[in-house]
Amino acid sequence: MDTGSSIGLVAPQSAHFSTPLTLRSGAMMPAFDLVYETYGTLNAAKSNAVLVCHALSGHHHVAGLHADNPDSLGWWDNIVGPGRPLDTDKFFIVGVNNLGGCHGSTGPSSINPVTGKPWGSDFPLMAVVDWVRTQARLADLLGIESWAVVMGGSLGGMQALRWTITFPERVRHALVIAAAPKLTAQNIAFNDVARQAILTDPDFHGGHYYAHGTYPQRGLRLARMLGHITYLGDQQMDQRFGRELRNGAFSFGYDVEFEVESYLHHQGDKFAGFFDANTYLLMTRALDYFDPAREGNGDLAAALKKASARFLVTAFSSDWRFSPARSKEIVHALLKNGQDVSYAELDCPYGHDSFLMPDPDYHAVIRAYLDRVKL
Amino acid sequence: MDTGSSIGLVAPQSAHFSTPLTLRSGAMMPAFDLVYETYGTLNAAKSNAVLVCHALSGHHHVAGLHADNPDSLGWWDNIVGPGRPLDTDKFFIVGVNNLGGCHGSTGPSSINPVTGKPWGSDFPLMAVVDWVRTQARLADLLGIESWAVVMGGSLGGMQALRWTITFPERVRHALVIAAAPKLTAQNIAFNDVARQAILTDPDFHGGHYYAHGTYPQRGLRLARMLGHITYLGDQQMDQRFGRELRNGAFSFGYDVEFEVESYLHHQGDKFAGFFDANTYLLMTRALDYFDPAREGNGDLAAALKKASARFLVTAFSSDWRFSPARSKEIVHALLKNGQDVSYAELDCPYGHDSFLMPDPDYHAVIRAYLDRVKL
Repeated sequence: MDTGSSIGLVAPQSAHFSTPLTLRSGAMMPAFDLVYETYGTLNAAKSNAVLVCHALSGHHHVAGLHADNPDSLGWWDNIVGPGRPLDTDKFFIVGVNNLGGCHGSTGPSSINPVTGKPWGSDFPLMAVVDWVRTQARLADLLGIESWAVVMGGSLGGMQALRWTITFPERVRHALVIAAAPKLTAQNIAFNDVARQAILTDPDFHGGHYYAHGTYPQRGLRLARMLGHITYLGDQQMDQRFGRELRNGAFSFGYDVEFEVESYLHHQGDKFAGFFDANTYLLMTRALDYFDPAREGNGDLAAALKKASARFLVTAFSSDWRFSPARSKEIVHALLKNGQDVSYAELDCPYGHDSFLMPDPDYHAVIRAYLDRVKL
Repeated sequence: MDTGSSIGLVAPQSAHFSTPLTLRSGAMMPAFDLVYETYGTLNAAKSNAVLVCHALSGHHHVAGLHADNPDSLGWWDNIVGPGRPLDTDKFFIVGVNNLGGCHGSTGPSSINPVTGKPWGSDFPLMAVVDWVRTQARLADLLGIESWAVVMGGSLGGMQALRWTITFPERVRHALVIAAAPKLTAQNIAFNDVARQAILTDPDFHGGHYYAHGTYPQRGLRLARMLGHITYLGDQQMDQRFGRELRNGAFSFGYDVEFEVESYLHHQGDKFAGFFDANTYLLMTRALDYFDPAREGNGDLAAALKKASARFLVTAFSSDWRFSPARSKEIVHALLKNGQDVSYAELDCPYGHDSFLMPDPDYHAVIRAYLDRVKL
């Protein structure tokens, strides 16, 4: 199979939006910036635009490399590029850092124009619909009346789903990958522990750690370690780490004994070194709040009735965070409405993280669907 | 069904052991105390003794009430008492707080005779086999040559399993409930996050928080919240909490929004108010280390070959911490050896915590097995 190639060097752009935006919470953003990247060329009919929405810890840098950093490969580079499933020879692809993020778009670490200091915990909380509305503003700016495709995995898939309800006339295809129509109590509980780790870190200072010159590194590290467990498949963890010992024998102490501990510490430390804790809080809360069926009195089919997009819903058998059963709730709601939906359940072993992996079957499904998208 | 009655008022006892004990780690305990309780009467033949081993957060107070506290019902009172599945009219039951515990037995908060100060993190780490050896010392003291039954759930079940290997001639029946022959990488990973929450709490002071007049309350709270998620069934959480909101509507903040958050905070706060953090560390590490098959080069059947006990292995379908598949590993190893084992898989909805619940089918299985135990 031709796996295509990377798009190569790319550069982020920034857009300023000065029309105030009323958020789902009732709060108002007076103005904001969004950082984004584009790959490929928008055709004359402006009919080949694809929006890639990012998940909890993602950003606008979906594919390619930044010239100043050879380690900067985009988080979904394996799927985007010439000849890749999301083919830059066919599509014009847009990645955007969501409002409230920490990769250049306006977020909690940005300066609050009212106080002249970082927003911190005064930054308004986000709902998925707020991101969709800001992404629509970006589409307006780019002259994109309707997206050929809106797609994403996990929280990104929830944005794609939300797009089909909020702007049904502006989405022709939605790819909803490894997502769920709403979190379960267990999902919320894991988010809660992660947030509590950050909120109770003495260095958090009520979210105003920027002003205190501190950083809730311990809390964010724990949050990420816990998150990681839920991203990986149970059997995958056993195959990859099992009960392997770091030093071959028990040392009877609390330093790293098992390889899996070493892995988690590394992931936690790395993440806590660059991600903003307030953004992490905000992203997990947006996940908690997501529940488009609330608008249909809990009836997801009723909420999705207004969607006119065609759907590809994809789930992974080893994903216990958002299991295939959760994707099927979306599929069943669409089928109930007689809407156009394809469903693929894939046997990738990588748990929730499968959506990021270059699994041949998974990529073949995405490729086959996108190849049929008419421009 | 007759569900029997509580044993009523009980009182703990304490035993001092002054013969040094070499631990699995190589460390030596010069002397130690064990706190224990007994229910029922040891018969003349001393053939009716039952050892109940406790799990991560358990202790010696298995059943009945303490006279000074009307809220002190033992943690397994629903199964122990006259006419109950573990019938005090038939059996003499012993509950013991494990060495390293925080309910009266020698543990990290006890005074280290060498320094005259609390042991803190100098307290040696425990392996399950160490607990079994100390429990054997207690059996010697009580004049119990062989237990009619050794039983427990979760980490308690692991102790029962270990008893059958370490002292095969001293156990006639082992009830291994909601246990596993060893932790998976995912199990270890959850323990690791819990430990890291405690170890990185600034109030932990390397385990010598007693001397600093502090307490890693934040870390222990997080550890317990996380533990709780793994003790409950996923569907049970959805049925009990779902996405119910505390105040009926989103408040767009980080205070409690969902009922499940309120529940977890309550559980975490309560636990952190009385449990010793060093004991929590030590108990989770003993879980990590448990792997009797290591002695048989990874072959569990080889390790269990020396056991002469009869087994009842019990698992719960909703338990994703130690799923029925893990219990079946024990059953299959015993069957491979042609050993006497009964297996019951029960449809209790309470996840791992099912072993503590008065589910009628579960109790009927335990009752039927124990009724047939010949004294």
